[in-house]
Amino acid sequence: MSEAGAVIHRFETRRRVEFSDTDMAGIIHFSRYFVYMETAEHELLNAIGTSVHTRIDGVAIGWPRLRASCEFLRPVRFEDTLEITVTVRRKGSRSMTWGFEFAHEGEVVARGELVTVCCELRPGEPPRSIPIPESIASRIAEATVE
Amino acid sequence: MSEAGAVIHRFETRRRVEFSDTDMAGIIHFSRYFVYMETAEHELLNAIGTSVHTRIDGVAIGWPRLRASCEFLRPVRFEDTLEITVTVRRKGSRSMTWGFEFAHEGEVVARGELVTVCCELRPGEPPRSIPIPESIASRIAEATVE
Amino acid sequence: MSEAGAVIHRFETRRRVEFSDTDMAGIIHFSRYFVYMETAEHELLNAIGTSVHTRIDGVAIGWPRLRASCEFLRPVRFEDTLEITVTVRRKGSRSMTWGFEFAHEGEVVARGELVTVCCELRPGEPPRSIPIPESIASRIAEATVE
Amino acid sequence: MSEAGAVIHRFETRRRVEFSDTDMAGIIHFSRYFVYMETAEHELLNAIGTSVHTRIDGVAIGWPRLRASCEFLRPVRFEDTLEITVTVRRKGSRSMTWGFEFAHEGEVVARGELVTVCCELRPGEPPRSIPIPESIASRIAEATVE
Repeated sequence: MSEAGAVIHRFETRRRVEFSDTDMAGIIHFSRYFVYMETAEHELLNAIGTSVHTRIDGVAIGWPRLRASCEFLRPVRFEDTLEITVTVRRKGSRSMTWGFEFAHEGEVVARGELVTVCCELRPGEPPRSIPIPESIASRIAEATVE
Repeated sequence: MSEAGAVIHRFETRRRVEFSDTDMAGIIHFSRYFVYMETAEHELLNAIGTSVHTRIDGVAIGWPRLRASCEFLRPVRFEDTLEITVTVRRKGSRSMTWGFEFAHEGEVVARGELVTVCCELRPGEPPRSIPIPESIASRIAEATVE
Repeated sequence: MSEAGAVIHRFETRRRVEFSDTDMAGIIHFSRYFVYMETAEHELLNAIGTSVHTRIDGVAIGWPRLRASCEFLRPVRFEDTLEITVTVRRKGSRSMTWGFEFAHEGEVVARGELVTVCCELRPGEPPRSIPIPESIASRIAEATVE
Repeated sequence: MSEAGAVIHRFETRRRVEFSDTDMAGIIHFSRYFVYMETAEHELLNAIGTSVHTRIDGVAIGWPRLRASCEFLRPVRFEDTLEITVTVRRKGSRSMTWGFEFAHEGEVVARGELVTVCCELRPGEPPRSIPIPESIASRIAEATVE
């Protein structure tokens, strides 16, 4: 967790591959990397004192995904521990581009990206993009070097 | 699909095992049987003209799960087609007990059960159990023999 | 299913959104699109008489994923039926690039891509890329227009 | 983690609900409890120095599931932390019955059970039950009180 008030441009977490994450090829099913990315993003948001689903000034705010991609470099197996690094690739006025690097025992095994857009959520209406609230935007900085 | 007005006590569907349903043991991951059961239950509800999430007389209605169980008799593999039979084990005033039998090439491979309770869903409140609406209850009969 | 001997460059399938595919935002969880893509790819392989895991001339053959990406255009909900179109974007000597378009009621809701590589699988060894066997390659043609 | 040589009859772990674990009802999807149970069982096995997939005296050993059940008492939400307690309900000569209790902020929210059977795994053959190896059995004791 970052200190209160700290500005984040990079975040590290770890995760151990579960049995249910594997497939009959004996490795992590590729769709699970997207879940790992998302959960790492949510931990980063927690670290700056917010959540992916929160309320600010009485408005429900969420971050629908616009794009997701991942490149798989090496197979990863059951009970391997992944070191996951999230970096801020781009901080837009209404959207974020998060970069992800997955490593196992120091070797990069996958790289991914998520583009998310800050939205106001009203029941029964489609999400509507809004400027990232200052209380969140002020805690995030673009990474200059990945 | 049943005819309009028909009363259902048994429902059959089929499903092919997907790659992402398997685990490193090369067979369906056991947690996926619970998804298969639930989706078969939802297809049965569709067949009697309703949905697991619907509105009746302006009230949002859902069916939270109370209990779920499954017994695994034989391993099932990628691209195997399962024949799934749902039977009405018990029709209570507010709850349903659904029985499930999974067969592959005529041989029973798993058997499960779901107990669900009919609830009124109001935003921000916990689900509250209600009598099963007559328009649904009248379309379901207990199976006398499984 | 295509006729025996037919050459495929485009494949269509349909899929209904299951309850377990949704998340608390009330829409399909984005990671599930990757499962939908993969299963559509596997159906295409079945349609040309092969499988994503098969044996040819005594050799176990699989198609590990190199890259996956998806763009999410509109939210899709429980019990919506998706029309999924797979096209052959690129047929390499050892890899395939598959394009995916997801539509709901005629409107495009998501677009994705998978890059897969044909590999020989030997127990205890990492997958080793091989030329796509002629019996498979001869049944697939690049789409000229998507 | 237990000390080397310690005998275990009860094991505690924690887990935070991820976004992808939720469904459109805004709570954990019930099928995920089975994944949570299994991963807690695997952590217990790690704590006594083994793994759910291991080799003992050159033989590959696994623990296929025979039965799984769960009772859902209260809804659990995104980012809630669950305290999971595993107890040894029954230690058979070839099988284990594990009990699970899930609590949130001190209140029990679900209770489950897994029955697993110790098996020798040979490629291309169905799993064959074997007596639990002494090196594992000697580290596990039945809980006298849950």
